[in-house]
Amino acid sequence: MIYFDNSATTKPYKEVLESYVTVSSEYFGNPSSLNALGGQAEKLLTKAREQVANLLTVKKTEIFFTSGGTESNNLAIKGAAYIHKNKGRHLITTSIEHASVKKSFEQLEQDGFEVTYLPVDSSGRIQIDDLKKAIRNDTILISVMQVNNEIGTIQPIKEIGEYLKKFPNILFHVDAVQAVGKVPLSLNEYRVDLCSFSGHKFHGLKGTGVLFVREGVRLSPLLAGGGQERKLRSGTENVAGAVALSKALRMVLTEGKNGIERMSKIREILRNGLSELEEVQIHTPTLNSAPHILNFSIKGIKSEVLIHALEEKGVYVSTTSACSSKKKSPSSTLLAMGVTDELAESAIRVSLSFNNTENEALAALAAIKEASEHIRKVMK
Amino acid sequence: MIYFDNSATTKPYKEVLESYVTVSSEYFGNPSSLNALGGQAEKLLTKAREQVANLLTVKKTEIFFTSGGTESNNLAIKGAAYIHKNKGRHLITTSIEHASVKKSFEQLEQDGFEVTYLPVDSSGRIQIDDLKKAIRNDTILISVMQVNNEIGTIQPIKEIGEYLKKFPNILFHVDAVQAVGKVPLSLNEYRVDLCSFSGHKFHGLKGTGVLFVREGVRLSPLLAGGGQERKLRSGTENVAGAVALSKALRMVLTEGKNGIERMSKIREILRNGLSELEEVQIHTPTLNSAPHILNFSIKGIKSEVLIHALEEKGVYVSTTSACSSKKKSPSSTLLAMGVTDELAESAIRVSLSFNNTENEALAALAAIKEASEHIRKVMK
Repeated sequence: MIYFDNSATTKPYKEVLESYVTVSSEYFGNPSSLNALGGQAEKLLTKAREQVANLLTVKKTEIFFTSGGTESNNLAIKGAAYIHKNKGRHLITTSIEHASVKKSFEQLEQDGFEVTYLPVDSSGRIQIDDLKKAIRNDTILISVMQVNNEIGTIQPIKEIGEYLKKFPNILFHVDAVQAVGKVPLSLNEYRVDLCSFSGHKFHGLKGTGVLFVREGVRLSPLLAGGGQERKLRSGTENVAGAVALSKALRMVLTEGKNGIERMSKIREILRNGLSELEEVQIHTPTLNSAPHILNFSIKGIKSEVLIHALEEKGVYVSTTSACSSKKKSPSSTLLAMGVTDELAESAIRVSLSFNNTENEALAALAAIKEASEHIRKVMK
Repeated sequence: MIYFDNSATTKPYKEVLESYVTVSSEYFGNPSSLNALGGQAEKLLTKAREQVANLLTVKKTEIFFTSGGTESNNLAIKGAAYIHKNKGRHLITTSIEHASVKKSFEQLEQDGFEVTYLPVDSSGRIQIDDLKKAIRNDTILISVMQVNNEIGTIQPIKEIGEYLKKFPNILFHVDAVQAVGKVPLSLNEYRVDLCSFSGHKFHGLKGTGVLFVREGVRLSPLLAGGGQERKLRSGTENVAGAVALSKALRMVLTEGKNGIERMSKIREILRNGLSELEEVQIHTPTLNSAPHILNFSIKGIKSEVLIHALEEKGVYVSTTSACSSKKKSPSSTLLAMGVTDELAESAIRVSLSFNNTENEALAALAAIKEASEHIRKVMK
């Protein structure tokens, strides 16, 4: 099996799953219980929080565990908008955000907020000047993803953060779900107020996530209740999930530079190989894109057809984002970049992890060549 | 170790954890991915959903997986209130609900809704006549827990549902988090529209839950995004968690009657033993209470003191609900029942699972007797 769908989800590391099992079976107490078993669980949760904070070089009180990237994005965006609605009702984001960001903003629009969606250029990048022009007196929140989940384009987070230092009243949220471990992120240097992470995108477990909330930033909670996570996210803490996430994050960040170089090389092999094929258009820009994503279209071959042909050869890729893949409408990200409908309907996303190899890339290339030639023959 | 804190959380069944590991490591695909690995994951998710639906004798399209009881309660209550706010803004609940219900209603009050909190009698039960009187033309939602998490009192869900058949426009939500596997629940017969469950309360895993939503009932989603769970709960599905939950539910419901009889007997031993001790008041009513909870006070001995004395003897109990235990204020449930502040500050909750034994009850009784005598001696 060649698994090239790591932006949809990754295989959990063996050690991560082992930690999960140990905590779930041996330290199963409720961290809110006053007895010693609860105390043990609470200690583990605190350790996980400290580890995540250290890895992200922020304070442990700035780390909030959630049920995943979607919850982190919803909590950051709706939580910030609702609590500050009396300060202003204007919000800014981009036209190529993940569905969990996009739909959060759409909910807010229905609720009386006004949203500016920044356009992107043909490489999927926003222009910082567009952002500067969009800022108004009543702007309270700007949300920009660090790495696009479909094409891998990196947004100028550092520059945005730099510029926003002039606007202390505007909160800056970054969806870093696709960025962690692949692209540098300095929450302090970049002046990020809120940042979303998802465990299963970096070999952690599904149902686990983190929201970084800078000290002093207030949010309206989405899940009210027992007051866990300093009243920001109620619900019995998924201690084992948090420990698993902290372990996965440590492992991924430890692999760091080496892993990134390896992925970049694999992607280069794929990019070069694909360029040699007939009627292939590569959507992922060469510059300023994350090392693990390569999005391309083979003209005239619909995404789904190629995906299924490839899976028969043991190669697993996807169309656009997993979350939107069942909608059967062409990727709105690609359309926003100016890609034609026809090409967008043929888009394939290859997404790598540290576990992939150069040989897999070569085998995948051969499979893509064979499959596309076969499909073309059948179609004629 | 004698673990008597099962209402806070239960130890996951070994088989449940094994299923979780198998799914997480072997079927780790994203159910929304179009490739075969995604397809496998989606099949497992569907199977889990079908199993939960069958066990609850409802339709599989009525089962929605969430991150836990708190999310289920928030989604049911806020989701129903927001989507129907133009029909009416009056809501009814009880004065002894779990924090995740109570705080959801408090958020709604701040947002312009009006909430009637039904009082309870000295056994912690609401009067159906109070509910009848509270219903108004603009009532859109009634939320009543089936089993109280602190004292175990069972509310008259069947009678309420029966009465509400006359009011097809009022949604009926039941928090069944403490009831599953311990008290019969027929979602159809009782005319329940929305019902919340939490995996880790019945030997499933933390971070997993279910919301039953009767066909045709609309809710405003809390988590917007990729449109998973039929657009009601976005976010990559925690497939392994859902499979684990369905397995735990099957195991618990299979144990069913035998397990319940065993727990009832253990509780009887505890009740009788405690009654013989000095200055003990038992808060859990003899009639119409769930078999796994026994709440009592030993006059003059603060809850925390006894909890820590007992944990030194290897007996783990808790104060009130785990979610509220760190607030250090006496249980609002006990106060609502007319228990004095002084007694409420001494409240201890013993909560059982199918794994507990009669011998554990006898050992716990001896420990309670010894600990309380020792504490009394020291205090003098």
